Amino acid sequence: MEKILLGHGSGGKLMHRLISAIIAPSLGIAELGDAAVMDDVAGLQGRIAFTTDSYVVSPLFFPGGNIGELAVNGTVNDLAMVGARPLWLSSGMIIEEGFPTDSLRTILSSMAAAACSAGIRIIAGDTKVVDKGKGDGIFINTAGIGLVPAGVELGPTRILPGDVVLVSGHIGSHGVAVMAERNGLSFDPPVVSDTAALNGLVADLLAAVPGAVKMMRDPTRGGVATTLKEIAGESGKCVELAEGALPVLGGVRGACELLGLDPLYVANEGIFLAIVDNAAADTALDVLKRNALGRNAARIGMVREADQRSAGMVLLKTLIGGTRIIDMLAGEQLPRIC
Amino acid sequence: MEKILLGHGSGGKLMHRLISAIIAPSLGIAELGDAAVMDDVAGLQGRIAFTTDSYVVSPLFFPGGNIGELAVNGTVNDLAMVGARPLWLSSGMIIEEGFPTDSLRTILSSMAAAACSAGIRIIAGDTKVVDKGKGDGIFINTAGIGLVPAGVELGPTRILPGDVVLVSGHIGSHGVAVMAERNGLSFDPPVVSDTAALNGLVADLLAAVPGAVKMMRDPTRGGVATTLKEIAGESGKCVELAEGALPVLGGVRGACELLGLDPLYVANEGIFLAIVDNAAADTALDVLKRNALGRNAARIGMVREADQRSAGMVLLKTLIGGTRIIDMLAGEQLPRIC
Repeated sequence: MEKILLGHGSGGKLMHRLISAIIAPSLGIAELGDAAVMDDVAGLQGRIAFTTDSYVVSPLFFPGGNIGELAVNGTVNDLAMVGARPLWLSSGMIIEEGFPTDSLRTILSSMAAAACSAGIRIIAGDTKVVDKGKGDGIFINTAGIGLVPAGVELGPTRILPGDVVLVSGHIGSHGVAVMAERNGLSFDPPVVSDTAALNGLVADLLAAVPGAVKMMRDPTRGGVATTLKEIAGESGKCVELAEGALPVLGGVRGACELLGLDPLYVANEGIFLAIVDNAAADTALDVLKRNALGRNAARIGMVREADQRSAGMVLLKTLIGGTRIIDMLAGEQLPRIC
Repeated sequence: MEKILLGHGSGGKLMHRLISAIIAPSLGIAELGDAAVMDDVAGLQGRIAFTTDSYVVSPLFFPGGNIGELAVNGTVNDLAMVGARPLWLSSGMIIEEGFPTDSLRTILSSMAAAACSAGIRIIAGDTKVVDKGKGDGIFINTAGIGLVPAGVELGPTRILPGDVVLVSGHIGSHGVAVMAERNGLSFDPPVVSDTAALNGLVADLLAAVPGAVKMMRDPTRGGVATTLKEIAGESGKCVELAEGALPVLGGVRGACELLGLDPLYVANEGIFLAIVDNAAADTALDVLKRNALGRNAARIGMVREADQRSAGMVLLKTLIGGTRIIDMLAGEQLPRIC
């Protein structure tokens, strides 16, 4: 089979062949029943975390990755952000009729490699096929289950004035890589997506400074600006950013100027923001920097006490000494970035 | 907002407004963080069941339901089929730019009503928007988590010769209802989808004849024929069906003749097949019939000892005394039925 046909979504012979010959072995799914039945919960400890994301990135293949690893890493990261150890993943695919089977294989093997590297098991799957012109190649939904260990308590209510804002790496790489691919641009050195599973890096951080991490969030759609604005709003505090401290690769900065984008609003897929107690911030930064995924981590801002006017605000101290009020992304900067 | 715009999927202000004003309140999702964090597993007993399905039904609204309740009921049923009590559901929506917000509201409230009625909580969600012409109104993925109580052991290896095949209701209604709507046909009396959550009916059955239920499966895509063929194949037994025992509504039978469909291959969304120990079959049937969702339940076949030739076969004893070999659905009978 060189292309996916409508019949591959029928529930009949063609679908069984597609699933048993390609999808299940690629993803390492053993059982093909209605639902996967897992461990007795008696062997587990903690609170269950549950998350879902659909991936509609266009194009499907971009410098540094493809929709398959994005779909695994993105959901693993959503679990990691609430302090959960990722356990199990589901994969729901909506494939457009005529999609090349070879591309499907490549995407599946990227998913499997990403899951293996993140230490999460893909245990449930579903495949649907839609008529040509009613989809766009392939859309992938993943849902993830994780366990939050006892003692890990994260959330905006824990944020206090004086807390430090850390970012675990360069900002803006994913969005620029996808946008460049979409527009046929190439940069030297090339800009590649930062897509990566962050659960290992997060585990390092939580182990090193337990209790000092107040909240984490990965700045995907809407970028660092929108995510910090969410954090400021949910905590009722004011977040002050130092423009000069923001880690941006030269290639990304140049591309943003060319494309008219602000790196603060560009999507990321392999970094996270952490609000950390000031007393533990240096240790936290050191721990991040010792991990390859966090080697470009930086202290980028601070939480300030807010009055009625500044509660929920994000302020950027610019390089030239001014102050810019940072709002959420309005409208659409980069559609279908993840 | 009357229509969904690309910006509603951007991660920015428009998306926050869509989610906080429409999606989260409609579905009753309280927290809008990266992942929902639930109960301590110490309070839970059993094994975790996990399943996912994407729903791409066309048209979105059909007699007897819409894609919203289908997306909830279908995933609840996949949990129920492995004997799990449904706990939590995620909802991932891929919306086509230009989709009417009113239709979205209707679908969301159907999801909420179906979840409430099935006793499952929607706790995680995601919303993506794709460009006009790159989707088809709305696709919905749901993933579900349930708990299989200790002592519930279901699976094809438990099936023995002499076991009885029960079906919990009329076959073929969902597929015919969708097909009729798609083709602008109407029947008198109208044929409506059987979409329903089966977890209550399954709970009745498992409580009444614990241990006697060997395996359950809901015959969705591919219909009763394909599902029984799966069961025969997985168990290595031969399943014998009695054509005269198959419960089919007159309207469905007539519509199938008109449309050239075989009710055995038509999708269902509110019935299930159960393989039950012969000694408990009468009790099981009585229990099903006492529940409104199972009032048309019937004994439709038997499991036979198989030799090398007949292992994995499904045989239909026809009304005129012949025997027809039933195979899986080949190719595509009814695309995008769920």
